[in-house]
Amino acid sequence: MTNEGVHADEHPVPGTRRPGGRTARTRAAVRDAVLSGLSDHGYPGLTIEYVAEHSGVHKTTLYRRWGGLEGLVADALDLAGEDTWTPPDTGSLEGDLRALAHEVVDAFADESKAAAPTAFIAASFQSQRAADALRAFYSERFSRCEAVIARAVERGEADRDTDAAALVRAVSAPLMLRLFVTREPIDAALADQSAAVVLAATRAGAFSSR
Amino acid sequence: MTNEGVHADEHPVPGTRRPGGRTARTRAAVRDAVLSGLSDHGYPGLTIEYVAEHSGVHKTTLYRRWGGLEGLVADALDLAGEDTWTPPDTGSLEGDLRALAHEVVDAFADESKAAAPTAFIAASFQSQRAADALRAFYSERFSRCEAVIARAVERGEADRDTDAAALVRAVSAPLMLRLFVTREPIDAALADQSAAVVLAATRAGAFSSR
Repeated sequence: MTNEGVHADEHPVPGTRRPGGRTARTRAAVRDAVLSGLSDHGYPGLTIEYVAEHSGVHKTTLYRRWGGLEGLVADALDLAGEDTWTPPDTGSLEGDLRALAHEVVDAFADESKAAAPTAFIAASFQSQRAADALRAFYSERFSRCEAVIARAVERGEADRDTDAAALVRAVSAPLMLRLFVTREPIDAALADQSAAVVLAATRAGAFSSR
Repeated sequence: MTNEGVHADEHPVPGTRRPGGRTARTRAAVRDAVLSGLSDHGYPGLTIEYVAEHSGVHKTTLYRRWGGLEGLVADALDLAGEDTWTPPDTGSLEGDLRALAHEVVDAFADESKAAAPTAFIAASFQSQRAADALRAFYSERFSRCEAVIARAVERGEADRDTDAAALVRAVSAPLMLRLFVTREPIDAALADQSAAVVLAATRAGAFSSR
């Protein structure tokens, strides 16, 4: 699973992904400004003035359309969730789980890439709207990951009653625990271990829903 | 694993645990004030004035001995790590893993109990000293949990080369992912599932260090 949708530089030309005209371009420009503000200053340092200056959208428009900072952050997350990311499809459950785990390590190994998603998580401690948007973002992102399990079931690599939602979260969990709670380093070996643990548990039927 | 050491009401009479006289009592009173401030207002709302008022320790003393808010938060975490918590010892690896997972659910199910540890995690996004103290706290806490694995190895329930550090983190990881990243609910069934997954992976040798 990746957080790529929350990186400001994903869509270098605002509005190219959703050619919806001026409104879509404005929304993308505002989203980019929010992401760069979060990356540079974090949620506590983000201001409407910063977003206005970096998006070229007037403060009064920002207040009118987004209500304020909480609304801006929530909408940036909503928009991040509209990207076209799909989970890896390597041909085996083992390969897919390993690739998912490595995507997490790769996404957060680079501090500049990690800054915006980290700031969203930080914001969710201070803003209920950010927390709600983050829940929706991850819920949708993990449900895309469930395609990996559906394919594994088709190949006979996992039971038909496998709890796919729990399984895909279990791959990222040891990595995200270290990134955001215990503040410990993560690396490729840890990604491999997490994938191996989840694969072994899947084979043993530990993710079967009762 | 529990966060019980970080609850303000653990040691109702400051200084009773470490009868070191006035200094220990002052430190405990300050710690309690920091915890209640974090619980009530979170890190962004914590002030030296609040800690001074609630601890009865003068502001100038707080600045002199702790340097400021970051130092106060870090010391509260250090002191929280000095509690006497030990991991469950139920007689089987399965029982111990399940009890550990349930302790996490119990610790965070109650909002008033969860407020201080949650505020520490929030603080670690804003303060490097808080992040360092949190890393030290969890590192020490998880190393206590490794007793569970040592006993399992003695009983022949786990390989001698089991990566105990990874194993004990894997039990909490799916729960803490939902609490602090994806903002999803956790419950006893999820604790049981996490324990079952880790147990199955342990039996399959997936935590064996290469």
